[in-house]
Amino acid sequence: MALRACNQSQATRNGLKEKVLTLDTMNPCVRRVEYAVRGPIVLRALELEQELRQGVKKPFTEVIRANIGDAQAMGQKPITFLRQVLALCVNPDLLSSPNFPDDAKKRAERILQVCGGHSLGAYSISSGIQLIREDVARYIERRDGGIPADPNNIFLSTGASDAIVTVLRLLVAGEGRTRTGVLIPIPQYPLYSAALAELDAVQVDYYLDEEHVWALDVAELRRAVRQARDHCRPRALCVINPGNPTGQVQTRECIEAVIRFAFEERLFLLADEVYQDNVYAEGSQFHSFKKVLTEMGPPYAGQQELASFHSASKGYMGECGFRGGYVEVVNMDAAVQQQMVKLMSVRLCPPVPGQALLDLVVNPPAPSDPSFAQFQAEKQAVLAELAAKAKLAEQVFNEAPGIRCNPVQGAMYSFPRMQLPPRAVQRAQELGLAPDMFFCLRLLEETGICVVPGSGFGQREGTYHFRMTILPPMEKLRPLLEKLSEFHAKFTSEYS
Amino acid sequence: MALRACNQSQATRNGLKEKVLTLDTMNPCVRRVEYAVRGPIVLRALELEQELRQGVKKPFTEVIRANIGDAQAMGQKPITFLRQVLALCVNPDLLSSPNFPDDAKKRAERILQVCGGHSLGAYSISSGIQLIREDVARYIERRDGGIPADPNNIFLSTGASDAIVTVLRLLVAGEGRTRTGVLIPIPQYPLYSAALAELDAVQVDYYLDEEHVWALDVAELRRAVRQARDHCRPRALCVINPGNPTGQVQTRECIEAVIRFAFEERLFLLADEVYQDNVYAEGSQFHSFKKVLTEMGPPYAGQQELASFHSASKGYMGECGFRGGYVEVVNMDAAVQQQMVKLMSVRLCPPVPGQALLDLVVNPPAPSDPSFAQFQAEKQAVLAELAAKAKLAEQVFNEAPGIRCNPVQGAMYSFPRMQLPPRAVQRAQELGLAPDMFFCLRLLEETGICVVPGSGFGQREGTYHFRMTILPPMEKLRPLLEKLSEFHAKFTSEYS
Ligand SMILES: Cc1ncc(COP(=O)(O)O)c(C=O)c1O
Ligand SMILES: Cc1ncc(COP(=O)(O)O)c(C=O)c1O
Repeated sequence: MALRACNQSQATRNGLKEKVLTLDTMNPCVRRVEYAVRGPIVLRALELEQELRQGVKKPFTEVIRANIGDAQAMGQKPITFLRQVLALCVNPDLLSSPNFPDDAKKRAERILQVCGGHSLGAYSISSGIQLIREDVARYIERRDGGIPADPNNIFLSTGASDAIVTVLRLLVAGEGRTRTGVLIPIPQYPLYSAALAELDAVQVDYYLDEEHVWALDVAELRRAVRQARDHCRPRALCVINPGNPTGQVQTRECIEAVIRFAFEERLFLLADEVYQDNVYAEGSQFHSFKKVLTEMGPPYAGQQELASFHSASKGYMGECGFRGGYVEVVNMDAAVQQQMVKLMSVRLCPPVPGQALLDLVVNPPAPSDPSFAQFQAEKQAVLAELAAKAKLAEQVFNEAPGIRCNPVQGAMYSFPRMQLPPRAVQRAQELGLAPDMFFCLRLLEETGICVVPGSGFGQREGTYHFRMTILPPMEKLRPLLEKLSEFHAKFTSEYS
Repeated sequence: MALRACNQSQATRNGLKEKVLTLDTMNPCVRRVEYAVRGPIVLRALELEQELRQGVKKPFTEVIRANIGDAQAMGQKPITFLRQVLALCVNPDLLSSPNFPDDAKKRAERILQVCGGHSLGAYSISSGIQLIREDVARYIERRDGGIPADPNNIFLSTGASDAIVTVLRLLVAGEGRTRTGVLIPIPQYPLYSAALAELDAVQVDYYLDEEHVWALDVAELRRAVRQARDHCRPRALCVINPGNPTGQVQTRECIEAVIRFAFEERLFLLADEVYQDNVYAEGSQFHSFKKVLTEMGPPYAGQQELASFHSASKGYMGECGFRGGYVEVVNMDAAVQQQMVKLMSVRLCPPVPGQALLDLVVNPPAPSDPSFAQFQAEKQAVLAELAAKAKLAEQVFNEAPGIRCNPVQGAMYSFPRMQLPPRAVQRAQELGLAPDMFFCLRLLEETGICVVPGSGFGQREGTYHFRMTILPPMEKLRPLLEKLSEFHAKFTSEYS
């Protein structure tokens, strides 16, 4: 207060009015938001790149962005069929060109047929183009062994991010001790903590079990929800499977237990399944919450409320820039679902090129189509390379003293735990930094490798991690992993 | 309460638990949101289209969507150059095709060069691709006669909608009598009322002056802000210029007066300038708030906080589906601006194809480029036809007894005022409908013409309007305007 008053009088002295919008007067919820994946590390990486371009000498020649799950930024090529159809949709003059396969043309025509004015440039209805919602429903049915999906329960979105925030927004209510609490895993994908802070909901942490490949333990969920009931009203439970940043793939038994728990505790389930096509480890398999829920039968099927999210940003296509995504809601109250339609219509519609792209992802070429063979080959090549890289990351890190890495069963990240010497921890504290942030900043300055500290995702007190994507091309990944391990050894000896 | 208890016991009787998320438990702010542009009228229009397809007999053969500012949905063709460049960006294999002009190829290469992995499929930085922000800055400088624009003050967005909601989100704070109040015009574009309801801010209405072509009157602003101070803290003022739904273009004098008022009253200005290229009337000219503010000099320039919004959805290109837009902030507190960057990064980035498209809009072919002539011709043709349609709408409506229409100086809408006979008003009240909603629903059922009632935008008590876009193709527009006028006459005599 004293400070503010002083600012004001100073401002007046200079003949300047104080700003209307300042840190003091702005939305306090927004101010509380933290967002690590694009935080100080990334800003510093940008600066370093600029310095390199300006010819400043560094102990490395390029910055390697292993901080974000952005496959194409790391050199992965787009899948040919997807881009052919999209180019035809963008510029239908090309439909007469002999350089596009017939099935690509048919698919482009099928999409344009259902666009306003037969153009990607028209708004779609807010929940997304009906035909595409139908294609998504059929994709889900195939994925889930025939369990029906209703297109009316599917909402296309601006990336999965948008759908996740929309569902959270619906769930937030109450004040003080009745505020909505939402259970999220720790470590988590920081969209969740950021959205909950912004919405002024209560973040309720449950810890994944690092000793058991980041399994989800119902006893821990119970602890979290019971404790939370003292100060808020827990109403939703988020699960990320396959996990980001943790890379685990939950077992079917675990998912069943989570569903029983959510049902007993009356929690709306949010299943973030954007990595459903990214499963690499032998013995691991993706089980959708929808499928498990349905197969569990009554009282779960037909009652337990669920929202499942998917995205065009991940999988084998990695088309992050198009911002295609969807949510399927299951057992949602019909009136609430109407409210969701209304909420989405305020922002008009998700990007139509992203909708079109999503359509191709959920409805890829069939074996009889001319593009099938190439499509399949490209898709398998990407997934096989990701699987090899997942294994490599685990292996190299586990060879390094002081680093221990769970198997990367799925998703796009390794999340190794590292030991940091007490003197390094102390030095970090002197600098006002989380110890693993200190490590990651030093790593970046000395090697150009950009990874995100575990503290950005949450971790058990006193443990230290970093998240590194497995996306750099194979020929770069091994030297990168080794360089990182060496740096850790050097850092450790420096502070021992 | 009684009802809720009863639901619950009934649910329990059936062995069903009550849903976690219901109208009673959901976010009450979301529940309060109203959104007319895509409300009941549009739902009914969708149903009618379906019935027509199923062969149900109607007094019309097609539904005409004159309810939404979506040019391409109404048959406007995309601008060739924009789609050529975009197709090249989507599918860079086409860069070797002889069927694209050289300047289109150069532009595509220039954009891809600055995309992660040289692909539209990578995430961009959250505030948008730097090169495109620089192009936007140069566009603004040209528009404003050389007044400098800083790319760091420009944030690309998912349509203007996204940017508007983001700035409002920053502004919202306080509780009870200190809640943020935001002044919005009545009639307004309902994104504003919806976003304010969702954010639990206070909507403060100021009425545009219908008798003076919807001018913005500072006395009315003053009345609104003074009254609002009793129950909230007014902190921002939105102006839509050219106006939606009202189609006026504000004079420079008026804008100066608004800026002085905002400065005196300490209001953050939001200038919704998405129709800046849509000015038709002789004597009307677009003046950006930024330019006027800067030219007013101290104390306004350098102090008055402003956010100005633009979009790729309107203008001559009408590329709504791509969701390209931006906001330029002026005199924003540096720390708040950093908070804005953080807030935007939570949702990762705006759609990259939309960013690319926006780049072409702000940086069109130069006179020396091979595509210039065609680009210019297409652009001028669209704008000339819009101007003719604006005039036609005004003229036909003003010939109809009981309808009075202000000149459509800009934007894409006519917003005529109509007389409704007292018996029609009474009948509407019996049906629980706003009288103009009753009129519009009847109009839709009997003619297939879909327009939005004035009550969806707000209007002075006891006055009735509808908003009709001027976007249907010329050959359809005249019969449409006449049919609508005739229907009004028939409706009037039916209820007289
Ligand atoms: C777990 C998880 N959920 C959601 C998202 C959001 O992705 P998008 O908005 O690009 O679909 C991501 C992106 O990295 C993610 O990792
Ligand atoms: C006044 C006004 N502002 C903003 C918008 C949002 O447009 P978009 O989100 O498509 O850029 C519209 C759309 O109709 C509008 O009329």
